[in-house]
Amino acid sequence: MRNVATMLRPTHNGERYELTNPTAMPKAGGFLWNQKMMIQITCRGFATAQFMQPEPAKYAHAPNIEAKTFMQPEMNYYAHHPGRFVYIKDEETGQLFSAPYEPVRAPVDRFVFSVGKSDVTWIVENLGVRVEMTMGLPTEDVAELWTIKVSNLSNRPRQISVTPYFPLGYMSWMNQSAEWNPELVGVIGSSVTPYQKASEYFKNKYLKDKTYFICETQPDSWEANQVSFEGEGGLHNPSSLQGPQLGCGDARYETPTAAVQYRLALKPKEQREFRFLFGPAYDEAEVGAMRAKYLSKQAFVQTAAEYAAYMARGRGCLRIETPDKDLDNFVNNWLPRQVYYHGDVNRLTTDPQTRNYLQDNMGMNFIKPGVARNAFITAVSQQEANGSMPDGILLVEGAELKYINQIPHTDHCVWLPVTLDVYLSETGDYELLREKVRGTDGSNYTVFERFSRAMEWLLEARDERGLSYIAQGDWCDPMNMVGYKGKGVSGWLTLATAYSLNLWAAVCEHEGKTDLARYFRAGAKECNDAVNKHLWDGNWYARGITDDNVTFGIKSDPEGRIWLNPQTFAILSGAANPTQIAKILPQVDDQLGTPYGVLMFAPPFTKMREDVGRVTQKAIGSAENGAVYNHAGVFYVHSLYQLGGQADRAYKMLRQLLPGPNDADYIQRGQMPIYIPNYYRGAWREFPRTAGRSSQLFNTGTVSWAYRCFIEGLCGLRGDAEGLVINPQLPSSWNAMKVTRLFRGATFRLDIRRGDVEVVTVKHGNRILPNARITNIQPGETYQLSVLVPE
Amino acid sequence: MRNVATMLRPTHNGERYELTNPTAMPKAGGFLWNQKMMIQITCRGFATAQFMQPEPAKYAHAPNIEAKTFMQPEMNYYAHHPGRFVYIKDEETGQLFSAPYEPVRAPVDRFVFSVGKSDVTWIVENLGVRVEMTMGLPTEDVAELWTIKVSNLSNRPRQISVTPYFPLGYMSWMNQSAEWNPELVGVIGSSVTPYQKASEYFKNKYLKDKTYFICETQPDSWEANQVSFEGEGGLHNPSSLQGPQLGCGDARYETPTAAVQYRLALKPKEQREFRFLFGPAYDEAEVGAMRAKYLSKQAFVQTAAEYAAYMARGRGCLRIETPDKDLDNFVNNWLPRQVYYHGDVNRLTTDPQTRNYLQDNMGMNFIKPGVARNAFITAVSQQEANGSMPDGILLVEGAELKYINQIPHTDHCVWLPVTLDVYLSETGDYELLREKVRGTDGSNYTVFERFSRAMEWLLEARDERGLSYIAQGDWCDPMNMVGYKGKGVSGWLTLATAYSLNLWAAVCEHEGKTDLARYFRAGAKECNDAVNKHLWDGNWYARGITDDNVTFGIKSDPEGRIWLNPQTFAILSGAANPTQIAKILPQVDDQLGTPYGVLMFAPPFTKMREDVGRVTQKAIGSAENGAVYNHAGVFYVHSLYQLGGQADRAYKMLRQLLPGPNDADYIQRGQMPIYIPNYYRGAWREFPRTAGRSSQLFNTGTVSWAYRCFIEGLCGLRGDAEGLVINPQLPSSWNAMKVTRLFRGATFRLDIRRGDVEVVTVKHGNRILPNARITNIQPGETYQLSVLVPE
Repeated sequence: MRNVATMLRPTHNGERYELTNPTAMPKAGGFLWNQKMMIQITCRGFATAQFMQPEPAKYAHAPNIEAKTFMQPEMNYYAHHPGRFVYIKDEETGQLFSAPYEPVRAPVDRFVFSVGKSDVTWIVENLGVRVEMTMGLPTEDVAELWTIKVSNLSNRPRQISVTPYFPLGYMSWMNQSAEWNPELVGVIGSSVTPYQKASEYFKNKYLKDKTYFICETQPDSWEANQVSFEGEGGLHNPSSLQGPQLGCGDARYETPTAAVQYRLALKPKEQREFRFLFGPAYDEAEVGAMRAKYLSKQAFVQTAAEYAAYMARGRGCLRIETPDKDLDNFVNNWLPRQVYYHGDVNRLTTDPQTRNYLQDNMGMNFIKPGVARNAFITAVSQQEANGSMPDGILLVEGAELKYINQIPHTDHCVWLPVTLDVYLSETGDYELLREKVRGTDGSNYTVFERFSRAMEWLLEARDERGLSYIAQGDWCDPMNMVGYKGKGVSGWLTLATAYSLNLWAAVCEHEGKTDLARYFRAGAKECNDAVNKHLWDGNWYARGITDDNVTFGIKSDPEGRIWLNPQTFAILSGAANPTQIAKILPQVDDQLGTPYGVLMFAPPFTKMREDVGRVTQKAIGSAENGAVYNHAGVFYVHSLYQLGGQADRAYKMLRQLLPGPNDADYIQRGQMPIYIPNYYRGAWREFPRTAGRSSQLFNTGTVSWAYRCFIEGLCGLRGDAEGLVINPQLPSSWNAMKVTRLFRGATFRLDIRRGDVEVVTVKHGNRILPNARITNIQPGETYQLSVLVPE
Repeated sequence: MRNVATMLRPTHNGERYELTNPTAMPKAGGFLWNQKMMIQITCRGFATAQFMQPEPAKYAHAPNIEAKTFMQPEMNYYAHHPGRFVYIKDEETGQLFSAPYEPVRAPVDRFVFSVGKSDVTWIVENLGVRVEMTMGLPTEDVAELWTIKVSNLSNRPRQISVTPYFPLGYMSWMNQSAEWNPELVGVIGSSVTPYQKASEYFKNKYLKDKTYFICETQPDSWEANQVSFEGEGGLHNPSSLQGPQLGCGDARYETPTAAVQYRLALKPKEQREFRFLFGPAYDEAEVGAMRAKYLSKQAFVQTAAEYAAYMARGRGCLRIETPDKDLDNFVNNWLPRQVYYHGDVNRLTTDPQTRNYLQDNMGMNFIKPGVARNAFITAVSQQEANGSMPDGILLVEGAELKYINQIPHTDHCVWLPVTLDVYLSETGDYELLREKVRGTDGSNYTVFERFSRAMEWLLEARDERGLSYIAQGDWCDPMNMVGYKGKGVSGWLTLATAYSLNLWAAVCEHEGKTDLARYFRAGAKECNDAVNKHLWDGNWYARGITDDNVTFGIKSDPEGRIWLNPQTFAILSGAANPTQIAKILPQVDDQLGTPYGVLMFAPPFTKMREDVGRVTQKAIGSAENGAVYNHAGVFYVHSLYQLGGQADRAYKMLRQLLPGPNDADYIQRGQMPIYIPNYYRGAWREFPRTAGRSSQLFNTGTVSWAYRCFIEGLCGLRGDAEGLVINPQLPSSWNAMKVTRLFRGATFRLDIRRGDVEVVTVKHGNRILPNARITNIQPGETYQLSVLVPE
């Protein structure tokens, strides 16, 4: 193996990342998606794939009856976890290894795991043989396109066997089987999704319950039965690889698998190439159609080009050149890709949480504002008669609120103006507000009216002190017992309400509704005043007050003493005056700062606190208990940029969102810098061994905000009703950066430098602009701007 | 390894069974239980344990988030499946093996897996080391008591390490950790059962969410982290066993494990003995209490004695000595044990299906009739106001109907008289009928009245033709679409209703209610007539008629052509006249007979038949689609014994309920003859490779009926209101057998032989009895009887 110091490297201007040691970061992986599916695959070959029919389903299963659950962080991998593997055996010496690395785990001479934006590839060399694996997806269909190239690196003829092994797992307790299909040239696994109620039959009737693994080239033998494949040898040394061929067996109410074997006589330096298709299907006719459509060299090339074009449509609106090359790579390539993923497929759920749906689409404003526009309409069409928003937005007919969406949360309305703010600043499209939206309840209001009704509901949902009820949770999902009796209040939510009301008041003003603006501003002030009266704890804001009138998140609390979100939103809402802010910032640094980002709260709860609830039962370091919860962290960064004068603090925390730049940090976090996970393990003081570790979960509201922070904060390029305001906030260690920003159809190229100026000074051509603001923007035009920022 | 021919053998008069080759029957195993827990463990060391708190829970988990489901047949084992293992390493040579067999799977010099009624043991010899493992349970508490003895078989000193490895698995996504506890001398895994609703917190609050593995003797090192334990070596060769000691690590929101290591310097022939306790606990204080109570040599001895005494209380009422020694072993030891398990713990559910609850307790009549008596009272107390019985009987407060019990079935009332029949014949306790039972709905009726109301409901729940509605299923659970629209009818259920009404009419008669007896007999005749009119298909009875008036289970059906249960119940109900019976019996032989027992129906369904439903979607050979479904088979045997003159047919089918007598049959079935599984794979013609394979699921209504068939049928020893009737039905190949029968407090020792008699002739002492019937039975007395049966 190579030295750990060269373990991870960007290539192709940061458009790819390569990992050269699979044991240093065993969970590191990449992910691909299209509208109907998503696959996350690790450097070692373990994979988690799901597709929508319309609820999330799997075509490669665990070895047992796995629970249906939401996407979990820190996936646990084990020998029989689903994956995609190839065994290579030297048939002359009997030596065996597998690519990418599992299941044999043999040390190899060379290993390159390369994650691109539209494919994932491996190069594995051992025993004088090179294996190159590539996985791609189609743009429209649910299938994996696999290319496996095998090369004889030696100068002598070789006898080797090549055995792709794609386990299907335990498909169903009701019915599962698999067999070789000679016409389709592959293993077809069949199952029936289990059910008990007769009504479920009709619901399941057209599910894609088959899984196929089909080969472009006829193999010499195959195996469809997991137990027969392994034999007593086990996955690291399957018995079926000992013989002259695989057993060509079937699985009959036994665990299915898909393994095929090619026996190759390779001349010196000879190379052979194989293509396979893996995915779900309704019936064999569909498998046949997929075969015809995709399973050829030409189709693979064309599909890859189409998919790359699909990914390119998510390229985003920002390119930066800064002294921080890793940051450039991330912001120019990976962050918009992750934002695109969220906006494109809504985390592959049919009932995204309302706050997630709005924020994921907030990011889409920077990529495809039309998608975000439609999302507002979809969301508000599901508004309740009383003005509140439901816990989740149903995206397909027949979808139901599931999991956490069955627990009442009170913060969803807040996110309407907060996310609309970006839509309006990106597009200036105030027309949206005038659209009439018929509700699923039959009501018919304009978007403007619906937003106002939501704001009214927020104002109503407060107690006699003017503080917002928390019910069984707000943004911080699992604090479920603060207010379950109906009395507990949330400091954060009260501040978020104020922030939201102020944003909405500005829109009202733009729309000429000055009375309404005044009314909502007064409401915001009421909220802020109530928080200052009841929740200012001397150096920071408390988190809330329980049903039994216990204020928490205060200096006398040994656990959960200080929470990040109330501080952030006190800055955003205007509740905190400069004196208060001056007290808050160092407390956040000292109590919540870690090398891996800012903690959501501290210290973590070590035991149940019954008046707080579920968060205190979560594992320390997991998303909500003492972790670096990036969504909270990035909001804090947003508040710092809004505040101004905090460029260094903000940059430091933004930088912590991604691993690196040294290998020790990558190893500790265990992740390649191709996405921001929803959290890094916290409990930095309590459990340093695990602190910093990535959740490996790329579903997170963090990314829209991170992208916004780079665009509007660091680069300072935010729209208003008539144009683009320019106000970069460079960290003090930088003297210059270059930025390309797409905005309302025009291209802005900015050369930003420090200069001897008092305020940001913008030169367009030879003309120094009166303000750091461009109006009358011409679509299609390119604006070359020189920007000087104060030294 | 020993020759397969000696692979399996009974020892201790059949009270134990030994298996000497773990690869021939990899899923073969034993099971132990007490009132609070059950553990099934395979010869290779994989284990499935559950305990009641009060719903079934686990303390050793799968490596992923496993679905909560009912007990599944044909469990799939895989490398990381929960199990109990010991690694043995020769520290001088580096050679490694594991006992019992997994995870290393090294071929060993000697292997003995021995299943007893109150313990499970192994002897494994390899590398000149013998490992003896014993697992026992306490009578009251939830814990496994493990003894591991290690002996140096060689004549030289040895340096070995002994590493028990008890994986805890993925305990919870919400919170999981594990660490070494020096006071408790063991690994304590901690978790929080996941929940989202605040109300669930209170429900889960006192769950035993900890799992402990504690050692009597301080080990030299330990590991609590699964990934650290395995390293890159994997389970078959864990990296942590390469070093001088285990890593002594902890698990922090990582998969916990429990491994401890002893480094031993053994003199020639020296032996060392270790004891461990493994189980769930609420807190560490409880672990400490368990340690104090159980973790010593003396406590292990005492606990084993107590547990053996507990098992002995389930010894049953029958001992036989026949020419078939395997049958003797089974009937005298294992069958009553399995019957006892069912009656003792009701399959460890809190909501047993009503038909299962009644039948499981029917078996208990032969062991502890008082338990069965209480079960009747519990069951009828939950009768609905309209006389029907619910789909499940709730046994603990807060229990809910789950899984299949949420699907409406219409047969539950049938089982009341059918199972009462045995209670009355065993005890003569007609007093039960006079007991008033207050219902959970507040009603107050005698048992007699409740039974009559149930019979009335059965008569009501029929269509205009007099056939019984099937709703979403009857005894054959998953035929869910025959009558889901409310019109379809069940031939079986109509016949079962007639059988049940006739049995109840006899009780009415005994109670002097002749009018009622006449009324119910007339109802039975109506049912029988309706079936003969609408469902007699010329050579057998059809299974039913769908919502759309399609009769099925008839000769023109290419699949599901003949069903066993309607034929059985036509014999029992009196619907079938001798001419019809003479047609039915050979059809059953020809179409349903297989070497592994009689099929529930044939041919199996290969595709969905929408008017039949779920059974047609089940895998071929699984419980309900074309399998040897033993519960149906044993009922057929019962009907043959009731019919008389069918001793050979009945014996043959009874014998097929258990594997053997040759090793090829054991291997094909994959099970030791210590229990009857709920099914053997059928599809004998379609899929001969898998036909005969055991489901490995010992939860089945079969066993009560099998025991009844042996007692009342083969031995012909059935009680009536005043005494014991004697009517043995020996197969023609037998000339004699000896039977000991406990009955109403007396002991009957019968010497049964063929003789030159016309009818069964009984001699008590020197007196030939006028009838083959003993009355005026004296409790405590022993009756020596010589019985002659016609040649």
